[in-house]
Formats: sequence, structure tokens, C-alpha cells
Amino acid sequence: MKSTMMSSPLLLGGMLERAAKIFPNVELVSVRADGSRQRSNYLETQRRAKQLSAALLTAGIRNGDRVATLMWNQQEHVEAYFGVPAVGAVLHTLNLRLHPEEIAYIVNHAEDRFLIVDATLLDVYEQFRPHVQLERVFVVDHGCGQTPGGESYEGLLASAGGAEPDYPALDEEEAAAMCYTSGTTGKPKGVLYSQRALALHSLTMALPDQLGCSCHDTVLPAMSMFHANGWGFPYAATMMGSKQVLPGRNLQPECLLDLLEGEQVTLTGGVPTIWLAVLNALECHRGRWKLAPGLRIVVAGSAAPESMFRRFDKFGVRVIQLWGMTETTPVATVCTPKPHMANWTEDECYEQRAKQGCPSPFIEVRAVNDAEEAPWDGRTAGELEVRGPWVASSYFKLDQSDRWTKDGWFRTGDVVTIDEEGYVKITDRVKDLIKSGGEWISSVDLENAIVAHEAVKEAAVIAVAHPKWVERPLAVVVLKEGRQVKEAELCAFLATRFAKWQLPDAFVFVDELPHTSTGKLLKSKLRQQFGEWQWEQVPAGQRTA
Amino acid sequence: MKSTMMSSPLLLGGMLERAAKIFPNVELVSVRADGSRQRSNYLETQRRAKQLSAALLTAGIRNGDRVATLMWNQQEHVEAYFGVPAVGAVLHTLNLRLHPEEIAYIVNHAEDRFLIVDATLLDVYEQFRPHVQLERVFVVDHGCGQTPGGESYEGLLASAGGAEPDYPALDEEEAAAMCYTSGTTGKPKGVLYSQRALALHSLTMALPDQLGCSCHDTVLPAMSMFHANGWGFPYAATMMGSKQVLPGRNLQPECLLDLLEGEQVTLTGGVPTIWLAVLNALECHRGRWKLAPGLRIVVAGSAAPESMFRRFDKFGVRVIQLWGMTETTPVATVCTPKPHMANWTEDECYEQRAKQGCPSPFIEVRAVNDAEEAPWDGRTAGELEVRGPWVASSYFKLDQSDRWTKDGWFRTGDVVTIDEEGYVKITDRVKDLIKSGGEWISSVDLENAIVAHEAVKEAAVIAVAHPKWVERPLAVVVLKEGRQVKEAELCAFLATRFAKWQLPDAFVFVDELPHTSTGKLLKSKLRQQFGEWQWEQVPAGQRTA
Repeated sequence: MKSTMMSSPLLLGGMLERAAKIFPNVELVSVRADGSRQRSNYLETQRRAKQLSAALLTAGIRNGDRVATLMWNQQEHVEAYFGVPAVGAVLHTLNLRLHPEEIAYIVNHAEDRFLIVDATLLDVYEQFRPHVQLERVFVVDHGCGQTPGGESYEGLLASAGGAEPDYPALDEEEAAAMCYTSGTTGKPKGVLYSQRALALHSLTMALPDQLGCSCHDTVLPAMSMFHANGWGFPYAATMMGSKQVLPGRNLQPECLLDLLEGEQVTLTGGVPTIWLAVLNALECHRGRWKLAPGLRIVVAGSAAPESMFRRFDKFGVRVIQLWGMTETTPVATVCTPKPHMANWTEDECYEQRAKQGCPSPFIEVRAVNDAEEAPWDGRTAGELEVRGPWVASSYFKLDQSDRWTKDGWFRTGDVVTIDEEGYVKITDRVKDLIKSGGEWISSVDLENAIVAHEAVKEAAVIAVAHPKWVERPLAVVVLKEGRQVKEAELCAFLATRFAKWQLPDAFVFVDELPHTSTGKLLKSKLRQQFGEWQWEQVPAGQRTA
Repeated sequence: MKSTMMSSPLLLGGMLERAAKIFPNVELVSVRADGSRQRSNYLETQRRAKQLSAALLTAGIRNGDRVATLMWNQQEHVEAYFGVPAVGAVLHTLNLRLHPEEIAYIVNHAEDRFLIVDATLLDVYEQFRPHVQLERVFVVDHGCGQTPGGESYEGLLASAGGAEPDYPALDEEEAAAMCYTSGTTGKPKGVLYSQRALALHSLTMALPDQLGCSCHDTVLPAMSMFHANGWGFPYAATMMGSKQVLPGRNLQPECLLDLLEGEQVTLTGGVPTIWLAVLNALECHRGRWKLAPGLRIVVAGSAAPESMFRRFDKFGVRVIQLWGMTETTPVATVCTPKPHMANWTEDECYEQRAKQGCPSPFIEVRAVNDAEEAPWDGRTAGELEVRGPWVASSYFKLDQSDRWTKDGWFRTGDVVTIDEEGYVKITDRVKDLIKSGGEWISSVDLENAIVAHEAVKEAAVIAVAHPKWVERPLAVVVLKEGRQVKEAELCAFLATRFAKWQLPDAFVFVDELPHTSTGKLLKSKLRQQFGEWQWEQVPAGQRTA
């Protein structure tokens, strides 16, 4: 029997409209290329997003058309986050760090009609421009009046005047945004987010036991707004009426710290690499920055080492880890403690906090191992599968149905354990596991342990073919500047925590490790590099030093 | 263009399932008729709700069938909250405080098939039993084995054994629950809540700027679970994995305070009447109860006087007012402060907190005055109209389309102002306004002002026909025990805050005021009682004392 409730779709437009009505003067601060901070607010943002909507309609953008962006975290990107989907068009955020050929492939595959590009990124645009057919390109020129290769974004907005856009009626299942995954293998794959998925994602991530996003927060997204909807930060912050600080291109630790202090940011997030650099700066310049009490830093993108939680705690900064993928909008699990964990030992608490966390409301998780669901015992590993209203069910124009199970779960490719408390812990990517003599060895566990050594800056552990054990772990290590350490010392350091057979058979010291554009370790390249590796007869751990 | 997101309906079942998996040992505590506390947890609740689902299916309950409950706030009610909707049936919570004839009307109008009744409420059931045709009645007998007039609820559950129910596939728009409004006029009207509406309502009310419901909370619903889904408390608490304390029938202030202290409740809610009694007990017995630090009390149902916020603050207890109706699931606005209000004067803050608050995300509000939308200026009054995904669009089997506007908004019947900050303030029910000489006088404002007098326990102000002014306000006042006060003194007391023409023309002192079963002032009865009132020539405010 049908209910008597209103049929009221969950749309992004209502979120900005509410902010403009209830929080008109709450600020959105954009850091520009010259370091200056430009201040807008929700009322103005709503007015400009409306102008964008009206202008896009006038320009012939219709339901489902893709409008691409090539921008930093900045005011105009927020305008596009709302103004594009409001007319039923699809906001397609391009990853400016990809190779121009890859961007061209993505633009063509997505069939983007328009592009909004920041003037500071015209060089990127120029590199893929010959390979794409964009109908119109709008340049955010910051008042300089120069828009080579395109039209003026401000001109586009001005053309709309103050007319109310003739918004089409929208269904909440319609696509509102799209992102391509910057996978380390295969062609980029597009995910089409619905209005509903983004709205539910915003509601859920703002819950007290998730990120706890409130109008009392000042939110600084230090992840890119072209990565998986900026992790939903711009949407959730708008929904709640939080002040937003958009850091632009410069995420150098000292600049970021100046901004965190200057705007008294209370909630931020980004990949661990950024925050490790911030941590080093904090430790080098004790007392230099007065951060807002209770500052929370959300980390995701790759697993954060436990030491990061401990070190930030000393500055009164709380690190919260979460897990997600482009395919999950992205937030799917968040690691916040349960009440009874207050009675745990410090070590137990940190071990728990370094996990990826519990599934969000309405998200289901399971670990599947040889087609069987692994028990939630914190030990049995399996591939993480997820299901829920903000999980992709397919890719855009691409048949990769092997990524979904017959019963409709998404195969994440992450190997995890789930403990009795429901906390997911990533032990590896499926393809990064090392299968030695029939036993699995976790490269992530080894990497986290190696970087805990005071002389180590970064480490990767990869599987290398072995005549006897099929595969054995090889550690590739970057040392901190001016530091030295012997293979034997690292072995001994690890031996307290790992079984002998789990230890890397060799350690190679290099100057740097290859990364993807999003800062993830590019292990495929390492595997290639060390494909011809010849093992010594006696593994490192068994040699006499 | 359709998104590639999973089609994953928002269903109540997933909420309890998540709690049982992630918070299996978190308690649900039920206070029984003898005052004892029975402890269950989410794992057991899920097991029993599943048994209820399986047994209902076996008994022939199908999609859309209504299963009624006549229960207190207790464990078995939570089981029904989830077990009934899980099979697509509709949970119909009966208001046990209504007149038996009215209950019979409601049961018949709703076409309830089954009833689950607590043994302590069999006397209520017996009174309407002759007038209804329920197919089966299940009695929660608390182990006494006596189920006169029905079968055993425990027997029903046991009959299901451990078999997994054969859950039907459900659409989120399907009806999950139903409530009849206990209106003061006209026939009771049924609202059919969808799975979607209840799920979205739970998510939203748990947000930090709404009630902030978390797994760190111990939640005690002191409103009735038969009123508008217990204000969504049982659903939101389950979704978040909060501990629940279900107080049963006894809401006497000292019992409630023992429970709040004993279980260290952090979040509770109910009508102002209950909390005023609690406040009096706290003030009479200072130091007797050690309440949990940061206890929040949510009040709604009728406007809470400003003095209540001030008095509770002295005990470190934060009162949060919200507004809603049976037709709005019910939470539609919540009054929590914005950051900049921290700089306001104490009086300004209290004035703001005594308002009904800002619309929740996805809820839209407007005040309509002579078919025009009133500006958000905090002065211009109009009838409150609301719209959103958890607002009713019609009543069950009843044409009352005049309650909805042509453009799809629900007419609440409440007269409000909305201020620049977006805070709604109820000034009156449409029918409780006094129109004197063409000007409106707010009876609620007068009532709140009168109860602020130290000798006054309760007050009602009604419109009485007047030969000259059409209507004039008459105040009906209940004094505190042993206290006396003259009409002239009350007049002088009010005169500092109201214009002369706004003052009641007379004050009548009575022993008690009539209330509805939900504790609301029954003004219709007062209007009837004073229908023949003869005004004196000189109004109270102009007489010489």
C-alpha cells in the first residue's frame, strides 16, 4: 500500500537554497593563485549558481548534458557543483593531474559539451585541447580580462542577469555529477552520481558518529574537488551551512597551516601524504600555529599509519580515517570509536582508529573469501564488497560487470578483515597481496611497519616471483634525508612483529617511489621495475649482518 | 540521464539489522509495570523482530495490512516498530488515551486486522472491543501466562522459531506505519508514513544541528510511542546504535528522574507538561539526582515557555524545542543556535531558543498571509505551510484537500512568524487567534506571559465574542497551590510587555484547565464553557484596583 507522504525528490538544489535562506552571510573563502583570500557567502553563491544555471539553459544545455570543470577548490567550483546539476546537466570534474592524453580520452568518452576552466589551468587545457571537441570553454579569469582559447566565465554569468532560471522538473535518480576513477590499471571508468546519492551521502556523512558536520564548523576540503565529489565535503558543508575554506592550488604544509589557523578551520580532510607533511611542519615549528580547538582531519585515499594518529593527538588534532572509492560517492565506512572503547588501552584504541571503520547507515559491507562470506572476526580476510544507495551499479558506457556480484554487490578490489565490532580493516589491494608458499602476506602491514622506523620516509612492499615460494616480498625503501640504516636493522625491527616467513627477503633503498596523480603508490610500476629481480640465496632476515 | 547508482531503497529493516551487527550488545531497557527494568539489546531485538515478521507472514499478514498496537514505550513496541513494516505491513499505533469510542472508530477506519496489546492495557481494549472486528489479538503478558481475550504474544514469536522470514521485496514509498491525529476538532485523520519518510526523518533528526543523536547517547523517549512514531526517537536511536530506555507507563517526575539518573540518559524528549513537573521536582529536591552531564531534553507538542529554558539551564540541562505534527512524521523544525548567536545577550538567546527553530534539511517552510508569502522579518504573521519528503500529502481514506495548497504545501493551521535567521515562531493556532477590532492578538503570547508570573501554574487565553470589538481575550488562570493574586496585579504584570488593547479584558480563576489526551490545552472546551460570557463595561486593565 502506498503511503500518503509527499513525493518530494532529494535534489541538490534545495541544499544551496536552504543555505542561502538560513545562512546567507556564512562565508565561502577562496584562496587565489596570488595567495589572497576572496570572500563570498551562501547568498552570493546561490545567486551566482542560479546565474550559471540560467546561462547554461540559454546556451542550450539540456538534461543529461555533461559540463566539465578543470578547477581547483575554489568558489567557482562550488557554483558549478550546484549550478550545473540544478538544470539536470551533469557536472564532470576533470582530474587536472592526469596525463593530457588521459584527460582527452575522458572528455571524449564522457562527451563533455562545455568546459569551465580556471585561468591558471589553461596550460593543462592547451595540452589536451587538440584532441577534444568542446563546444564552448569558459575561463575563470579572476578579473584580468584575458580568456585565451575561451570565453569569460564572468561574462557567461552576467549574461543571465537576475532572471530566475526555468528549472526543469528533476527526478532524484537522474545523474547530477560524474567522476572517472584514476585507476592504476585499465582505462579510466566513469561513475554517474545521482542527485539522490549525493543528497543521502551528504546527510549521512554529517551525522555525529560519521564526520559530525555542523553549522558550527569551518570546513576546509584539502582533497581535490575533482576527486569523487571532493569526498562530499562541499555538499555536506552547504547542507549544514558550515563556513567553507577553499584552498586553491597551494597545499604546501605551511600555507595550509596558515590557512587552518587564520580561518580557524575545525574540519578538514585529504590524503595522508598531505597530512604527514603538515605533521612534520607542526613538529618542526612547535607553537607557531594556533589551530582551532578540536580540529578534525579526515584522512582517506590510502591507509594512514597508526603513528599519524598518535603524533597528531599530541597537538590536540583528531585524525579520523574513512574509506571510500570513486564508486562509493565516496564515503562508505568511517572510523569513529564506540563508547565502550573508552575503556580500552591506548594501544588498542590506536589500533582501532587506524582501521577504516564501520559502514555508514544504509551501506552494507561484507568480506568474501573463496565465494564465502568471511566471519567478522578481525582475522579472516576477504575481498570487500559493498552495497547501498550511493554505490555505483555500473560504469558509464563500459561493460565491467565482473566488478559486481550476481547478487548486486560491488567488488572493491580491497582485501579486508572485519572485526567483531564491525570495523573494516584494509589489509591489501587484491593485486598487492603476496602469496608465498600458499600463504598470504600483507604488503600494507609490512609497509606500515617499515615506515614506523625513525629513519624511513616511505616504503613499498611488492611481490616478486620466487623460484621456490612462487612469490616473496621485496621492500623498496626511501630513507629520510641524511639517514642511513642497514637491511639487517630493518629486518630486526620488523622481526618483533612479523613471523620470519612474512619478512621481506630483501630491502632496496631508492631516492623516491612512483605515485599516481592522486598520491597513491604506483605499485604496478615498481613490479615492472623489479620484474627481473634475482633473489639472493639467503634472505635478508637469515643473513648474518 | 539516469545515474549509474544502485537502486537501493531506504527501508527500516536495514536500520535494525545494522544495529544488531554493529551494536549487538547495546541495551534496550524497558521499565515494567512493577517498576522493574528488563534489559534486552539490539541483537535480541533483531531476533525477536524477525520472529514477529515470520509469524505475521505465517498468519497471513500481507503487504499493506494494518497491525495495530496498544502499548507503552516498551521493548515489544520497538519489535513491532520494525517487525511489522519489515513484511510490508503497516504498524498502526493506537492512542490509548482516547475515548474508547474514538479508538473503535480509528480501528475500524484503519481496518486493522491484528492487535498487539500490553496486558496492562487490556481494560482499555475491553472498552472498545465490542465495537471492532479484529481478527487476532496478541497479549504481551510479561510471563504471567494470562492472555484473556487474546493469544500470547510470546507464543506468536515462539511459533516462528529461528526461521528466516521470507521478506517480500519492498518499495520505499510503501506505507510502513500509520498514526491518527488526535485533533481537537473533527474526526481523527490517518497519516500513512512511508519507509522512505521514516528513514530520511531518522537520518535528519540525528544531525548535529538537529538533535545530534549518536551511539554515545542513551535515549529515553518520554513522549508516547503511539504519537507520531514516538517523534522518530526509536528509529533514530536504532539507526545510530544508541542505548534506549523505554519508560513504560509511569512518567511521574520522580520516577522519570530516577530513570534519567540511573541509566545516565543523555537525550530525552516529551511534551512541556512532563518537563515542567520534572523541573519542579528538581527544584524541590536540589542535589537529589545526578543527571548525565550535557543531558538534552527535547520539547514539543505545545510551546515551551522561555522560563523553562532558563530554569533547566541552572541544572546543566539543555532544553531544545522543536516543532512538528503527526502530518510531518513529525520533526519539521528544530531550534538550535547558530554560531554568531553566541555573541547575543542572554535575553536575546533565550528569546530565540523559545522559538520553534529552523526548518530541517529538505523541509521547506513559508508563512502565508492573505495568499501572500510573509517576509522573514520576525514580525509578519501568517499560516505556516510546509513541504518535504516526510510531510503528508493527504489523509488515509479521507478527502480534506483544503489542508493542502494548490501548489502542494501542507497547511499546518499554526500561525507563525519567521525571522531573518529562518527561525519559525508559533504565535497561535489559526483558530486560537483573537481578532479584536480588526487586529490580531496572540493568545499564546499572552499565555506565556501570564505563566511567567510566580503565582500562576497554568493559563489559557481564549477569544470571546464582544459587542464592540467582535472578539476580546479572556484569560482563564490556574494558580499555584496556596497562592493568590488579583486581576489587577496580573494586568499590571502584563502591561509592561503588551499594548493596552492586547490585554485580556478579564481574568477568571479556575482549579484546572481542560486538556486533550496528549496534554494540549483543549481550548474548544473553554470556548464552549465561556461562550455566554458577559463582559463588564470596564475591562480589567482599565478598572481601578
